[in-house]
Amino acid sequence: MKAKIIITPKKAVLDPQGKTVQSALAHMGYTGVTGVHVGKYLEIDLAPGTDKAAAHAALNEAAHKFLSNPVIEDYRLEIE
Amino acid sequence: MKAKIIITPKKAVLDPQGKTVQSALAHMGYTGVTGVHVGKYLEIDLAPGTDKAAAHAALNEAAHKFLSNPVIEDYRLEIE
Repeated sequence: MKAKIIITPKKAVLDPQGKTVQSALAHMGYTGVTGVHVGKYLEIDLAPGTDKAAAHAALNEAAHKFLSNPVIEDYRLEIE
Repeated sequence: MKAKIIITPKKAVLDPQGKTVQSALAHMGYTGVTGVHVGKYLEIDLAPGTDKAAAHAALNEAAHKFLSNPVIEDYRLEIE
C-alpha cells in the first residue's frame, strides 16, 4: 500500500521556484504556460495489511505537524 | 488545462531526504512505514485552448532536458 502526499505553496504565497521555471520555459520557447507551481512530493510505502483509516489519520497528522508548513503550504494526502 | 510533472529519484539512487523523513516518522511513533521517497511536484497551468498533444510533447522535452536529471531521476507527466 502506498500513500502519496503532495505539498504545494498556497496560491497567495510567492513561489519564486515556480516563477523561475515559468520564465525558463518561456526562454526555451515553450509558450502557452500561464503559471507554474513547484511543490514537494512524498511517496510513502506502507507495510502490507496496514489499516487504511488509521494510516490516513496518522499521515494526515504527520503532514500537518511536520511534513508541511500549514501557514504557507497546502497538502493533499492520498492512500491507494 | 493543467499539466503535472512528478519527479522522483530512481529506486537505485540513494534518497537521503526520504530516509530522513522515514526515520522522523518512526521516531514520532508512526509505525508501518517501510520506505519514503521524496520528489518534486510541478503543476503547470496551460493557456486555455492549448493543443494537448503539442503541450505533452513540449513538456516532455522540457522535463527530460532541464526539469529533471535523467541520470538519477524519473519523471511522470500527466496533462488533464
